[in-house]
Amino acid sequence: VYVRVKSVQRIGDKLRLLDQTRLPHELVYNDYDRYPDIIAAIKRLEVRGAPAIGIAAAYALAVGVKQTGKYQSDDIRVVANEIRQARPTAVNLTWAVDRLMARLEATSPENLAATLDVLWAEAEAIHREDRDMCLRIGQYGAALIGDGDTVLTHCNAGALATGGIGTALGVVYTCRDQGKRIRVYADETRPLLQGARLTAWELQQEGIDVTLICDSVAGALMAEDKIGHVIVGADRIAANGDTANKIGTYSLALLAMAHEIPFYVAAPASTFDQAMESGADIPIELRSPDEVTEVFGSRVAPEGIDVYCPAFDITPNELITCFITDTGLRPGGRAAGAVRCNE
Amino acid sequence: VYVRVKSVQRIGDKLRLLDQTRLPHELVYNDYDRYPDIIAAIKRLEVRGAPAIGIAAAYALAVGVKQTGKYQSDDIRVVANEIRQARPTAVNLTWAVDRLMARLEATSPENLAATLDVLWAEAEAIHREDRDMCLRIGQYGAALIGDGDTVLTHCNAGALATGGIGTALGVVYTCRDQGKRIRVYADETRPLLQGARLTAWELQQEGIDVTLICDSVAGALMAEDKIGHVIVGADRIAANGDTANKIGTYSLALLAMAHEIPFYVAAPASTFDQAMESGADIPIELRSPDEVTEVFGSRVAPEGIDVYCPAFDITPNELITCFITDTGLRPGGRAAGAVRCNE
Repeated sequence: VYVRVKSVQRIGDKLRLLDQTRLPHELVYNDYDRYPDIIAAIKRLEVRGAPAIGIAAAYALAVGVKQTGKYQSDDIRVVANEIRQARPTAVNLTWAVDRLMARLEATSPENLAATLDVLWAEAEAIHREDRDMCLRIGQYGAALIGDGDTVLTHCNAGALATGGIGTALGVVYTCRDQGKRIRVYADETRPLLQGARLTAWELQQEGIDVTLICDSVAGALMAEDKIGHVIVGADRIAANGDTANKIGTYSLALLAMAHEIPFYVAAPASTFDQAMESGADIPIELRSPDEVTEVFGSRVAPEGIDVYCPAFDITPNELITCFITDTGLRPGGRAAGAVRCNE
Repeated sequence: VYVRVKSVQRIGDKLRLLDQTRLPHELVYNDYDRYPDIIAAIKRLEVRGAPAIGIAAAYALAVGVKQTGKYQSDDIRVVANEIRQARPTAVNLTWAVDRLMARLEATSPENLAATLDVLWAEAEAIHREDRDMCLRIGQYGAALIGDGDTVLTHCNAGALATGGIGTALGVVYTCRDQGKRIRVYADETRPLLQGARLTAWELQQEGIDVTLICDSVAGALMAEDKIGHVIVGADRIAANGDTANKIGTYSLALLAMAHEIPFYVAAPASTFDQAMESGADIPIELRSPDEVTEVFGSRVAPEGIDVYCPAFDITPNELITCFITDTGLRPGGRAAGAVRCNE
């Protein structure tokens, strides 16, 4: 399964990022050979999506050592710490940098060239594993979707968010490669409009039949019998299956159940966080009111207005038909009903 | 019950409109003594909301006859026809103009002054009746809401949409005047953001405790037990109670039922259209894709993207706890359950 859209690429000794802040207006790639520029790019959301950020951070460490020419572990640690702090809450970012540091410790390369070999190889391994993870999710998920089916998705869980074909959208691309005609409705996903800016653009680039809707249209579409499946990504999944994902996911899941439409969560098995017993344990980040009151720099609400802007909501396991992971399908709390995900 | 926000006012021989296209950034009133300017103002949505448009149209006819100085029925008919066509689908507009013309026919005034007296008096009667209708809706509705309750609303069914205190928001203002502390969550209401631009502004002006949310947040708020009541307006109600209102209303009603939160439709009894047997008979207007892909002139989606943008959706009567009308409360299809609206 192949997609043209690539969020993160190694080009020789440089890191190439697809600048997501310029989408959907312009397709711009930036090549980086200085690690502080990559940190700045991560901060300004030029690359976003947990897997893609992790891959960019891993490459950033190799770029940093190449740039500084310093390969003593204390020197590398300074660079690593700066990269880790690019976005303090991004778990994949820390995880990727830690993995490269552990690899250096395990192999103890003795000169700059050997150090760079280790770093580039490990960064590429992280990238490749992510690509493979997406492909497996796509394979497992595609088995649930038939020719001519219509899929609704929310936010962006696509190639732009990963190092490969994406999770939720990876299922769509895999269906396409299997010769199935799939139609996608993309929620615009207020407040940050990832659906309009990123998912609609990405699917358009890939030649998928995509229709953009306001988030409030999904229920009416379901009532009109126009949606066959809902597939979303996940930011974190508690041990009991309760799922944190972009705000609006919970409503979609409830609407899907009311209309007897299967609701799938596509995410790597690593998204399950066994430290969280249920969704009640997952902290919900509140975002700045500006994200709601300003759109592309235009003020859309009165000054001084109170705003409630959670980044995520929790979808209880009972509303989820099936989890589509890289290790296989895992039934959700709705699986006992008419729709079984493991058949 | 008094509100400071007035969408439409007669000032001597002029019509004063609160320019809703400038909200929430500026509070601008425009005074009109030429009827083509009022038609232009209606076209550009300087005044919106079916009742407010009807009142503006009625005053426009009086302004037009004053301006032209012509009072023969053929002359007046020319002006009336122009006004009727300001927004061809606005039922109240035609209704108001027809009512003034019928009044002229019934009274046959013999000179300009007498003609103007008839027109101004009838326009004021329409305005006064609308004001009274709002007050009655407020009274009936307020009986359902207790001190300290939290209300969620969608779009703008407030003073800005009517000649009085509004319908859904009229209930809130009436509660306030009864000494009840009410908290309101306002859906921003994509695509045209009437909730952010108008409802949030209007409630802020009136000193009501209001919090703005993205439409996709409502479900999560309900799950957090933060919503006591949902109150919305209506564009048209079929004989069986199925209700056409701003897109997103159906989803709210379904989410409210799932969370056992009462769902009220506040609208004049005249909104019931006996010619429509059920919601399936109500035509749904599709709006321009630009409303979704552009926000305040900024492009937010890729060029050439398909968009599905219905202006309204249909909420089945079974999801409605109660209709709050100017002739009293009328139970909806959900009234048989735990929540009874007529107690």
